[in-house]
Amino acid sequence: MARRARNRRDMGAAEASVIASPYVRRRLPFFDIMDEETVVKLERQVDWIIQDIGLEFRDDPEALQIWKDAGADVQGTRVRAAADWIRSLCAKAPQEFTQVARNPERNVRIGGHNQVFAPIYGAPFVRDLAGGRRYGDMESFEKLVKLAYMHPNLHHTGLVICEPCDVPVSHRHLDMVYTHMACSDKPHLGAITEMSRAQDSVDMAEILHGRDFMEENCVIMGNVNTNSPLLVDRVVTEAIRVYCSRNQGIVVVPFILSGAMGPVSTAASVTQAMAEAMMCCAFAQLVRPGAPFILGNFLSSMSLKSGAPTFGMPEPVISNYAIGQMARRVGLPLRCGGSLTASKVEDAQAAYESADSMHSTVLAGANFVLHAAGWLEGGLCTGFEKLVMDADRLGGYQKVLAGLDASDEAMARDAYNEVEPAGHFLGCSHTMRNYQTAFYEPALSDSENVESWEESGSNDMRQRAYARWTGMLERYEPPKLDQATDEALKDYVARRKSEIPEAWY
Amino acid sequence: MARRARNRRDMGAAEASVIASPYVRRRLPFFDIMDEETVVKLERQVDWIIQDIGLEFRDDPEALQIWKDAGADVQGTRVRAAADWIRSLCAKAPQEFTQVARNPERNVRIGGHNQVFAPIYGAPFVRDLAGGRRYGDMESFEKLVKLAYMHPNLHHTGLVICEPCDVPVSHRHLDMVYTHMACSDKPHLGAITEMSRAQDSVDMAEILHGRDFMEENCVIMGNVNTNSPLLVDRVVTEAIRVYCSRNQGIVVVPFILSGAMGPVSTAASVTQAMAEAMMCCAFAQLVRPGAPFILGNFLSSMSLKSGAPTFGMPEPVISNYAIGQMARRVGLPLRCGGSLTASKVEDAQAAYESADSMHSTVLAGANFVLHAAGWLEGGLCTGFEKLVMDADRLGGYQKVLAGLDASDEAMARDAYNEVEPAGHFLGCSHTMRNYQTAFYEPALSDSENVESWEESGSNDMRQRAYARWTGMLERYEPPKLDQATDEALKDYVARRKSEIPEAWY
Repeated sequence: MARRARNRRDMGAAEASVIASPYVRRRLPFFDIMDEETVVKLERQVDWIIQDIGLEFRDDPEALQIWKDAGADVQGTRVRAAADWIRSLCAKAPQEFTQVARNPERNVRIGGHNQVFAPIYGAPFVRDLAGGRRYGDMESFEKLVKLAYMHPNLHHTGLVICEPCDVPVSHRHLDMVYTHMACSDKPHLGAITEMSRAQDSVDMAEILHGRDFMEENCVIMGNVNTNSPLLVDRVVTEAIRVYCSRNQGIVVVPFILSGAMGPVSTAASVTQAMAEAMMCCAFAQLVRPGAPFILGNFLSSMSLKSGAPTFGMPEPVISNYAIGQMARRVGLPLRCGGSLTASKVEDAQAAYESADSMHSTVLAGANFVLHAAGWLEGGLCTGFEKLVMDADRLGGYQKVLAGLDASDEAMARDAYNEVEPAGHFLGCSHTMRNYQTAFYEPALSDSENVESWEESGSNDMRQRAYARWTGMLERYEPPKLDQATDEALKDYVARRKSEIPEAWY
Repeated sequence: MARRARNRRDMGAAEASVIASPYVRRRLPFFDIMDEETVVKLERQVDWIIQDIGLEFRDDPEALQIWKDAGADVQGTRVRAAADWIRSLCAKAPQEFTQVARNPERNVRIGGHNQVFAPIYGAPFVRDLAGGRRYGDMESFEKLVKLAYMHPNLHHTGLVICEPCDVPVSHRHLDMVYTHMACSDKPHLGAITEMSRAQDSVDMAEILHGRDFMEENCVIMGNVNTNSPLLVDRVVTEAIRVYCSRNQGIVVVPFILSGAMGPVSTAASVTQAMAEAMMCCAFAQLVRPGAPFILGNFLSSMSLKSGAPTFGMPEPVISNYAIGQMARRVGLPLRCGGSLTASKVEDAQAAYESADSMHSTVLAGANFVLHAAGWLEGGLCTGFEKLVMDADRLGGYQKVLAGLDASDEAMARDAYNEVEPAGHFLGCSHTMRNYQTAFYEPALSDSENVESWEESGSNDMRQRAYARWTGMLERYEPPKLDQATDEALKDYVARRKSEIPEAWY
C-alpha cells in the first residue's frame, strides 16, 4: 500500500510537470479571411467610431482627467480622439510579453506567434456527473484549480474558474487569488470587480514575486469587460489604473451580443469591439506607456426564438477569424473565443459547438484564450467533465498549430525504398524511428471496436472524463511554495478579511 | 384530419424543396498552410513516386495495355511514367464540372470554389436511439436516403448510406441505385464493386437521363479506393473504364492509415495519396480525355494502444489543409474529410471529432465531401441521429463559407447614428431590417436557460435528433418521377435480378 501510495504521488508530480511546452509556439500560418480592401474598410470604421462617435467613460472622473490632460476631446463623459493618435498610443503596448509564473518553467509568452490556453472564467454554477448541477463553492473552486494546474494542455489557470459562492463576495477575491498561488505554480489572473480587490491581487503578487521584480515583469493580469456598446465604466478604468500603473497586464474585452450590444452584423460588431478595446488600450498607455495589454473580443450570436445568446455558431466563428486579422494589423496580443457552448450538459451539442468555436479560436491566432476548457450553459456553469474533455482536445489543437512537418525525415523517402508497392509500412525503419511521436494520443477518445468498448462497459466520453478528473485529483500534489511566503500570503488574506466587512454583493 | 394530413404533406414538400442553395458557392478565401518551398518539396516527391517508384496496376491486363499504348514505362504490373506527362494528362480533366440531378434545381457544381456535402458511405451497421445497433437493411437504407433527400444541408445523397444487408450482394446495387433514383431527386453515385455493377448503374442512369444527354453531361459518378500503398486493382481501373468511357465522373480515393498503408508521417502520406490519385486521373484521361475526375484523399491516424484508426485528430486535420492546397495546385476537384469519428455513440467524443474533422474539411476547400453526415464507429455504422446532428452543423459551415459580409449595409453606420453609446440595438432600424437573416438558426442546438430546458424534459441533442428524423420521415413525400421512367427502371432491376444469381459475397 505504501508503495502504491508513493507511486501515485510520483505519478501526480509527473503529470503536473510533464509540459511539452508551457505555451504554444505556432508554426502554422495565420488564416486571413479578408482582402486588403475589406480590412481597410473595417479599419476606417474603427477610426470613425473613435473620432466621430466616441466612447462614454462614466463614474471615474480621474479617467476623464487623464483623457483631458492628454488632449482628447472630452465632452461631458463622451471621449472622442484622433484615430491616428489612438493608434500611436496602442503602438506603445508590447506586441509580445511574458507573464512570469512563480515556477519560471511555466512562464507564458503572450502575443505574436504564441498561444496560451486557460480555463473558463466566471461561472456561478458547477456540474459533475456524481454531484449534478449546484452553486460553485470553495471546495469545487480548489479542485478545479488543481485540475487546471495538473492538466498538461492548460498553460494558465485564469481566476474565477467557478464562483466560490460560499465565501462572502467581499472576501472572495482573497481566497481565489491565494488558491491559485498556493495550489498551482502556473500563471493566473487577479481580481477586477472593485479597485480595492484589484489592489489586493497586485499586493499579493508582490508578496509572491517581490516589488522590484514586478517593476520589470508582468506577473499578474486583470481581465475586464467593457459595457458595450461604447461604454467604459469605472470597473474597467480602475482595473487598468491598478494593474497598468504597476506595469502589470490587463485584458479588456468588449462582450457584444450582435443585435443587442452591437448591430446585428458581424462586420460592424468587429469594428465596434476594435474601437472599444483600442480606446482602452490607449487609456492604459496613458496610465503607463508600455504596459502589457491584451485586446479582447467576445462576440456572440442570438437565437431568434428566445433572444438567448448562442455559441459555436458560424457568426462568432467568422468573427474569430476576422478579429484575428484585425488584431495582427494593429499589433496587439488578442484574447478571443474559447470552447463555448449553450448546452446544459456534456452532450454532442456541447462538443460540436465547443469544437467549432475553439477550432476557429485556435486558427485565428488568439494569443490568450480564456474559456478554453470547462464552459457549459453559455458560461453559467463549469463542468468538471467538460474541463478535462475540452482540455484533451486542446492537445490536438497544439499539434495542429505545429503545422505540417515537411523535414526530410518526414518525407520518408527511405520508407518507399524499403517498402514495395502493395506492401505495408508497419515495421519499416522509418515507422520504427517515428511512430512513438507521430500521433497525438488523446486520453478521452475511445477508438476501440464496438465489441471491446461494450465489454469495458459501453462508457461514453462523459463517463471516461469523470474517471479521469477524479483520478487526477487523487494524484494531486501541491507544487512547492516557500513556507515564509506562504505564511505571508496567509497573513495578508487574514488581515484583509478582518479589515473588510463581510458582504454578499 | 384531412386538412392536417395535407398540411403535413405540404410541410414535407416544403422541407425537401427549401434549398437555399443546391451546393455551396464559397466566398471565404482558401487556407494555405504551406509556403511555396514546402509545396514544391511535396510536389517533387509526388513526381519522384510517379517516376521512380511507380504504381502497381494488377488484375486488369486491359489497363496495362492502355498504359503501354500511351507510352508509359510498364514492367510487369509496375507502371512508371514521366511526371510532366502525368501532370499534362491530369490537366485534361475539368477543373470544375456539373453533376446533373434528375431535378435540375438540384444540379451540383463540383470543383473550384464550389463545395458539395453528401452523407456517409459504406457502413454495414446502423444505429438509432429506439432500435439500437443492428445490421443495415433495405428498410433502413430507404429511410436514410429519404432523410438525405429531405435535409436542406445535404446536396447529394451518395450511394451506400448503409449496407442493405438483407439483399443479396449480387443484387444489392440494383436496389440501392433504384432507391436513390426513386426516393430522391438529388444527385447520387453508382456502384463500383464489380464492372457489371458499375455498368448496371450507368445503364440505369441512361434510362433516367437519356443516352445522348449523358454524352454531354455527368449524371452519375463512381467512388472507388486504391489499395494503398501504390496498388491499383481492377476494381479501380474497371470502374474508371465504365464511368469515364461514358463521360461520367469518377472519384478515386487513396485510403491511407499513416504507419500502415503509408509512412507514419502526414507529409509523406499526402505525397503518396497525390501520386496514387494523379496516376488514376491520368489513366482516366487516357480512357476518355476530359472525363470528370475527383481527386480523393482519406488519411487517418492511429491509436498507439491498439493500432486502431483514429478520427478527428490533428494529423488528419493538417492533412486536410495540406491536400486542399495540393489539389488546387494541380487543378483537380477534391474529395477529402467528412464528419468522422471513432466513437460508437452520438456522444461528445463523436461531436468533437466530427466537428474538428469537418471544420478542416470545409476550410480546406473539399469540393465533394462524402461522409459529411451520419458517420459513427470509424465508418462501420450509420447513425440516424448522427445523420441529422451532423447535417444541422453543415448549415453553419455553409454560412462560414459565405465569408464576412462587409457590405455597406453590414457596416451598419446608421445604427451608430441612431443608437447612443450605452444604449441597445434591439429595436433600431438596422436591426429590424436585418435580424431575420443575421444568424444561422440550428434545428438541434438548445440555447434556452437551464430552467426551460429542464421543464421541457432535459433532453440532450441525441433525443432531439431522434424526434427530428422521425418527424421528417412522417412528412416525407417522394419527388415526382415520370411513371414510364419508373416502370422502365423497375423492369431493368427485375430483369437484371433474374439474370444475376443471388450471391452473398
